[in-house]
Formats: sequence, C-alpha cells, structure tokens
Amino acid sequence: PEFMDQPSAMAGTSEPNRNSKYDPKKPHITEQPITRANWYKHVNWLNCFFILGIPMMGCVAAFWTPLRLPTAIWAVVFYFWTGLGITAGYHRLWAHKSYSARTPLKLFLALVGGGAVEGSIRWWSRDHRAHHRYTDTNKDPYSVRKGLMYSHIGWMVMKQNPKRIGRTDISDLNEDPVVVWQHKNYLSVVAFMGLIFPTLVAGLGWGDWMGGFIYAGILRIFFVQQATFCVNSLAHWIGEQPFDDRNSPRDHVITAFVTLGEGYHNFHHEFPSDYRNAIQWHQYDPTKWCIWVWSKLGLAYNLKQFRSNEIEKGRVQQLQKKLDQKRSKLDWGIPLDQLPVIEWEDYVEQAKNGRGLIAVAGVVHDITDFIAEHPGGKAIIKSGLGKDATAMFNGGVYMHSNAAHNLLSTMRVGVIRGGCEVEIWKRAQRENKDVNYVKD
Amino acid sequence: PEFMDQPSAMAGTSEPNRNSKYDPKKPHITEQPITRANWYKHVNWLNCFFILGIPMMGCVAAFWTPLRLPTAIWAVVFYFWTGLGITAGYHRLWAHKSYSARTPLKLFLALVGGGAVEGSIRWWSRDHRAHHRYTDTNKDPYSVRKGLMYSHIGWMVMKQNPKRIGRTDISDLNEDPVVVWQHKNYLSVVAFMGLIFPTLVAGLGWGDWMGGFIYAGILRIFFVQQATFCVNSLAHWIGEQPFDDRNSPRDHVITAFVTLGEGYHNFHHEFPSDYRNAIQWHQYDPTKWCIWVWSKLGLAYNLKQFRSNEIEKGRVQQLQKKLDQKRSKLDWGIPLDQLPVIEWEDYVEQAKNGRGLIAVAGVVHDITDFIAEHPGGKAIIKSGLGKDATAMFNGGVYMHSNAAHNLLSTMRVGVIRGGCEVEIWKRAQRENKDVNYVKD
Ligand code: HEM
Ligand code: HEM
Ligand SMILES: [Fe+2]
Ligand SMILES: [Fe+2]
Ligand SMILES: [Fe+2]
Ligand SMILES: [Fe+2]
Repeated sequence: PEFMDQPSAMAGTSEPNRNSKYDPKKPHITEQPITRANWYKHVNWLNCFFILGIPMMGCVAAFWTPLRLPTAIWAVVFYFWTGLGITAGYHRLWAHKSYSARTPLKLFLALVGGGAVEGSIRWWSRDHRAHHRYTDTNKDPYSVRKGLMYSHIGWMVMKQNPKRIGRTDISDLNEDPVVVWQHKNYLSVVAFMGLIFPTLVAGLGWGDWMGGFIYAGILRIFFVQQATFCVNSLAHWIGEQPFDDRNSPRDHVITAFVTLGEGYHNFHHEFPSDYRNAIQWHQYDPTKWCIWVWSKLGLAYNLKQFRSNEIEKGRVQQLQKKLDQKRSKLDWGIPLDQLPVIEWEDYVEQAKNGRGLIAVAGVVHDITDFIAEHPGGKAIIKSGLGKDATAMFNGGVYMHSNAAHNLLSTMRVGVIRGGCEVEIWKRAQRENKDVNYVKD
Repeated sequence: PEFMDQPSAMAGTSEPNRNSKYDPKKPHITEQPITRANWYKHVNWLNCFFILGIPMMGCVAAFWTPLRLPTAIWAVVFYFWTGLGITAGYHRLWAHKSYSARTPLKLFLALVGGGAVEGSIRWWSRDHRAHHRYTDTNKDPYSVRKGLMYSHIGWMVMKQNPKRIGRTDISDLNEDPVVVWQHKNYLSVVAFMGLIFPTLVAGLGWGDWMGGFIYAGILRIFFVQQATFCVNSLAHWIGEQPFDDRNSPRDHVITAFVTLGEGYHNFHHEFPSDYRNAIQWHQYDPTKWCIWVWSKLGLAYNLKQFRSNEIEKGRVQQLQKKLDQKRSKLDWGIPLDQLPVIEWEDYVEQAKNGRGLIAVAGVVHDITDFIAEHPGGKAIIKSGLGKDATAMFNGGVYMHSNAAHNLLSTMRVGVIRGGCEVEIWKRAQRENKDVNYVKD
C-alpha cells in the first residue's frame, strides 16, 4: 500500500533536521558503536546548534537586552500560541485526528505550530504516529526505554538511523492542503513565524525590535521546545498508570502544567483519538479547553470522545490487574484438591480421640493451637469439634467475619469424602447403612 | 453454659448506672413508645446527672477556680493515664484479650481505667463484646444504626431494656482476680481514682486542692468520657472501610487522634484480637506504642498479631468487592451466548456484499461506522473485512490496546459456528468438503 513506500523519518529533502547527504544504500554511522575516535560523527551537530547553540547565544544576548514589560507579556502570549500550535494542531488535530478544523483554524495552527520550530506537521506527525504504534520499542523514535535524556532531546542531538523508525500511514496528511503547503514552505514558515513575526510585533508595536527578537523569538522558542519535549520524556517517566501499565506512558499533573495539558499521557496513549487528555473537569488541560471553545465558535467540529463506559472499563481492568498481582503474592491456604480425602467416620473418630478437628463446609481443619485463642471463647469453639460446624460457623451461632474465614482456610488438613454431614447422612440412607452422625 | 446465665447488662446490683429496682418479670419502660406524657420516664436521670450534670457544674466552678500551670499539666497527664486505662486496659486487654499483662500492670490499668468513670471492667467488657458480636444489630448496646447521638451517649442517658443487649461469654473475666476485685469495689475505686487521687496529687504536690478537684478531676473525667465515647460514635461514622463494608466501623485519623489510637476501627472490628489498631508505623496509635513498651519492660507479654498475610487477604477481598460493584455497572457488550450463530460462509458472503463485517476471535463485528474513525487508518482496517482478523488485530499487524479490545466488544453482531477460520478449515478437511476460506 501507498503508505509503506513513504520515505523514512528525517529522510525527506524538504524536511528540517535532516542530513541531505543521506544515502539509504550506504551503511549508516549508527550501525557502528560509539567510540572515542568516532563519537563526534554520531552527534547531529546541526540539531545541536539549533536546539542548544542558538538558545545559549540568546541567553548571552539577553544580558545586553533589557526586558520590557510589553515584550515580556507578548513573549508569554506567543509562547502559548506556538505551544497550542503543537498540542492542539500538530498533535491532536493532525497526528491523531481527534477533531476536525475549518481552514482558518487549520492555517492558524499550521503557522503558530511552525513558530515552535519542531519540524513540519507532516514530519512531526509521522514520527508521532510511529511513537504511538511502536511505543517503547526500537521502532519508537523517542523511546523512553533508551533513557530519559534520550527521549527528551537525545533522539535529536544524536544521529538516528532513518531505517529504524517504524512506518505509519500518513495518506490523510498527504491529502490535506494545509499540511502539504506547510511542508513545502517549511523553511519560510519557520523563519517567519519563529523569528520575524514575533520581532515585527514587538518592533512595530512598541519599538522593541531587539527585545522581540531575543525574548519573543529565540528564548521563547527554547522554552516551547523544552516544554513540548517533556511530553516525550517526563510524561513517560513520572506519574500514575490508571489505564495500562504494560507501557511507559504516565499521568502526572506536573507534566500537564508544563505541556499545556498533555500530561495525562497514560490516558492519551490508551485513547489517542480522544480530543481530551484530561477527562475530569478539575484536571489542567488548556488545549482541550481551547478546542472546545473553537467548536463553540464553529471553527472546530466532530470532537471525538471515547464513551465513558469504555474508559471506565479500562480503569476497572487495570485495577483488576493490580489486584490480581497482589492476590497472587498472598498465601491462600492449601488448595482443596491437594488435601487428603477423609471419611466422615474417621474424622469423628479422630476428634473423639482428642485431635482438635472441626469440619466446616466439607473441609476438616486442625484448630488445636487456636482453641485457646478463639475470640469467641474456648467452650464455644470446642462445642464444634468432631461435628459438622458449617452452620454454627456461618451464622448459626455466630456469623464469622471475612477475617475468620481467611484464618480458617489456613488450618485445612483434609476434605471429607461426600461433602458435609447432611450429604453423608443422605447417602447412608440411600445405601441403607448406618452412619455415626453426632447428636447435639 | 455458665455465661448464658449471667445477668443482662446493667442489671447487676454491684454495677454503676443501673436501676436497682429493676425486676426482669415486670414490663420494662422501653416496651412503651416515648410520648409527651411519659418521656421523662425514658430518661436515665442518674446517668444524665453523671455524664452531663456534673461536668456542667464543673464548668461553672471553673469560673472561680484559677487554672495553674502544674495543675493543667497534671490534668493532661492524668487524662492520658485514665484514657489508657480504657483503651489499653478495658478494651484491648480485658474485652479482647489481645495481650496478657502481669499483675502490677493489671492493677495499674484497673485503677486508672476506673478513674475514667465508665463502669467496671466486667460491665464494660461484656457490653463491648456484645457490640462486636452483634455489631449494628438491635443486640448491639451502642448500635450506630440508631443514630450518631445514640451511639455516643444516647444509649446511656436513655433507659435501655436489659433484655435487649446480646449475651457474651465473660467466664474468663470472672476468673480474673483483678477484674473481680475492681468490680466488687467499683464505687470506692471510682471515687478514689476519679476524684480523690487527682485532687490529692495537686493538693499535696503544689497546694492546689480546688484546681486538682475541678480540672484534673471533674473536667478531665468529662473529656476522657467524651473522647472514648467517640469510639462508639465517630469510629462508626466517618472514614474508610478497607477491610469490610458490610458493617459500620470505619478507619479515620481524626478518630484516632481523639481516642488514643482507637480510630482504625474498621481494622479493629475485623481483627479484634490484634493488640494493634493501626498497623502502619506512621499511623497514630499511642495505645499500641504503650503496650509495646510494656512488653519490652516485661510487664506485658503474648502480644497477639494477625499474620500480615491474613490482613492483606482481607484488604484484597474488599478491593475486589468494590471493583466488582464498579464492573457490574458498566456495559460489557452483548454476552457471547446471546449472539446469533453465523456460518463462516455467510459471514464471508455478507462482507463481500459490502457489509462492514470483521471476524476477530470467532466473533463477528459490524465496524461500518468505525472504518473512517479507525486510528490506524481506513485502508488497513478495510484489509481485514470478510477475513479472520484475529491475528492481525492481536499483533500480526498491530497489537491493539486494551481500549481497542473493549471498543471491539461493543460492535459484536454474531458468533461464527465452529470458532475461528482455522477450526472451520480443519473441520471441513475432516468432513472432506470445500470451504471458502480467503487467501491474502
Ligand atoms: C472453626 C474455626 C473457628 C475459627 C477460625 C474462628 C474464628 C473466630 C474469630 C477470628 C472470631 C473473632 C470475630 C470475627 O473475626 O468474626 C470469632 C468469634 C466468634 N466465634 Fe469463632 N471461630 C471458629 C469456630 C467457631 C465455632 C465452631 C463457634 C461456635 C460454635 C464460634 C463462635 C464464635 C463466636 C460466638 C464469636 C464471637 C466472639 C465475640 O466477638 O464475642 N467460632 N471466631
Ligand atoms: C476490527 C476492529 C478494530 C478496532 C475496533 C480497532 C481499533 C483501533 C484503535 C482504538 C486504535 C488506536 C490505538 C489503540 O487503541 O490500540 C487502533 C490502532 C491501529 N489499528 Fe486498529 N482496530 C480494528 C481493526 C484493525 C485491523 C483489522 C487492523 C489491521 C489489519 C488494524 C490496525 C491498526 C493499526 C496499525 C493501528 C495503529 C494506529 C497508530 O497508532 O498508528 N486495526 N485500532
Ligand atoms: Fe507518548
Ligand atoms: Fe499522541
Ligand atoms: Fe465498634
Ligand atoms: Fe473492640
């Protein structure tokens, strides 16, 4: 099928962060182990420069650039816009199709998303779909199993074998004109939305060209990048796993605060086509709130939501799994099928001869050591020895607690052939023979 | 047996808070409903005076009695002693036999316990055993089912039918010389330990006779009583039920703080013969800490503890119960045995004719409405239509999440006669007939 033939991640020539000299036929540097002699060949120096070098220069420049209040406010506002471009646009709209958007909203998201400088929609979504499809495996582009730093930026600052990353279907993206347009003009979009536009606003607005460039441009890019990278690192590292603990995604409010609401990542990996990441009203998911407002304005529609019944089923199954793990670590007494079978008459006989045996529900228990400790008193428990104490134990005299039932099961020594006394008695009648049943 | 013949609670002549004119043969006042004309006959005025009247007079007297620091400290210390007399003595030692004590410790606990003015050990323990044995029923002397105020003090300030309270075995107490001695001399013990002793200490110690009487005597009694009454009221009202939710007892840290550690009451009702009420180190149970220290000093021994395996079993069972309740409220799809049975050939035929049918694990699903929404793409899900998609769905193409399995189960429309494709194919071979199985 069509999507099987698409180029591997980072191999397209119109994409950023790619090595244009890549030839799929030649052996790739990542096929060699990292050594003292070749380590620098493993580093993706271009990415290092973009992700770490430029922000550092921005920091230095910030020393000579006074931060003015309107510029600070604008940098924060633009931080949220470009962050939303990634979370509401790249991620929930294009990578997951969790809702549909009208063209004006699409254009807005494609532009501000470009301003976050994290690659084109097409490139980002393909990687992200591979991340969902092959989570935690070698085909996951930012697998956290390779370490927290690897999933955060290691996968970008070190060279990657383009053949390694899993393939996914992006035919829908190739049919989306906004995606295609943004991909073709990626370098212009990134330059304009990442640096020129924020500079223009601050420069034309209140004359702060340099501040706009450094704070709303370069440093804002750095913060947006680091924040959204946290979805790949932190959200696979800290928090709860209420829906599935086979893979690494986790729910944590801290990650949610850093990532505009993408921190309920265990939910998200389980229900990726849900436009929400947080499902409870009190959880922080501003991306969801924005999408919801856009839908009220008619800019977004077809907001997908998993039925809460399905979501609760997932939660119940995960709780059950945890409980089963706990249960399997406990001692539940000798299983009935491993107990010796005792004749009713033998049981009565042995109890008469002084062994502390008591039959409850067809199982014989040795309570010798427990008689003195019985919370209901010695006399009363002794009155059940050598008898069928099923009824007494289960409410006839006292309705024992769950704890008492559990304790009882640890004292098992045998099962009575034929079950409880009444069955033995009935069978004896049928077979027309005498049985030593005990009168009270 | 002996314990069946013991007098009903509050009916003994040597016990406090009793109506000495009680005659078991005459009809009791509680057999008549409370009316405007007879309500005062229902009130136990003597108890009202002791529990509410005296403390009120103490409050008034406190206006004219300056509180001196040593007296305040002494009142608090004596509050803890007398409280411990009830919790470590009356409750955990005598009512529940959760540990054994040497005579000096027994004497100390019998004395300070008497100073709390809550009846003799014998009377208190009998009621308390009835409370455990008949929790929440009419035979429970302080059943919370009759209201929070009833369980707190209502059962004392209103007359009770002595025949109502459940009977229990107290033969062990009747054999304990300290218990018998305290019971016989109860009025002297209570007068001395409740009032005279605290007054003497403050008077001889630092000359504060009046302060000792009012603060360390009367008002301290009031606070100790109210605090320990909370075990019967608050501990059956607020908190969690980690071990059993059939009855009212609950675990709450607030109750624990008020009652010297008796607030883990759900645990306590489930494991009454455990000398601990709190089992985790960070939970507040000073009564347990004291018993432990006494055991290190050789004053206490044979501290009983339920095996942690049994305790965890109880916890797991209760969690399971909660989970089952949650599970039963969810929709798990049409059960397999309620689905129509479809022939493999019919299934293939219908799918060929355009119905969106897909077979997974022997069950046919109608996915018509889902194809366009499939997160893995339209093309790929369509490739499974009319085939046995069991393997594709379960990892052959993509290992679907738990959520996907749950979603799938909501789309069931039929079961295939004979199970999965391979079984049908095998059967056809056995029966030597042709089958329309689909080649990929
Ligand atoms: C056979 C093994 C037995 C075990 C392991 C056992 C265990 C227990 C335990 C753990 C309790 C404390 C309360 C509870 O957890 O429910 C208890 C209470 C009691 N048991 Fe048993 N029991 C046994 C047999 C019997 C029999 C045969 C009788 C009566 C014929 C009996 C009568 C009572 C009564 C009346 C109490 C109430 C104690 C009270 O709270 O006053 N038990 N038993
Ligand atoms: C028959 C009913 C099906 C249902 C209800 C279903 C449901 C889903 C769901 C909910 C997902 C999202 C990820 C997840 O929760 O695991 C998913 C992903 C996927 N499904 Fe299906 N699926 C079905 C059939 C198929 C079939 C027959 C195939 C392949 C032949 C397939 C291939 C995939 C793939 C490759 C993905 C990965 C999407 C990605 O994250 O890139 N599915 N499916
Ligand atoms: Fe993820
Ligand atoms: Fe995602
Ligand atoms: Fe209780
Ligand atoms: Fe108790």
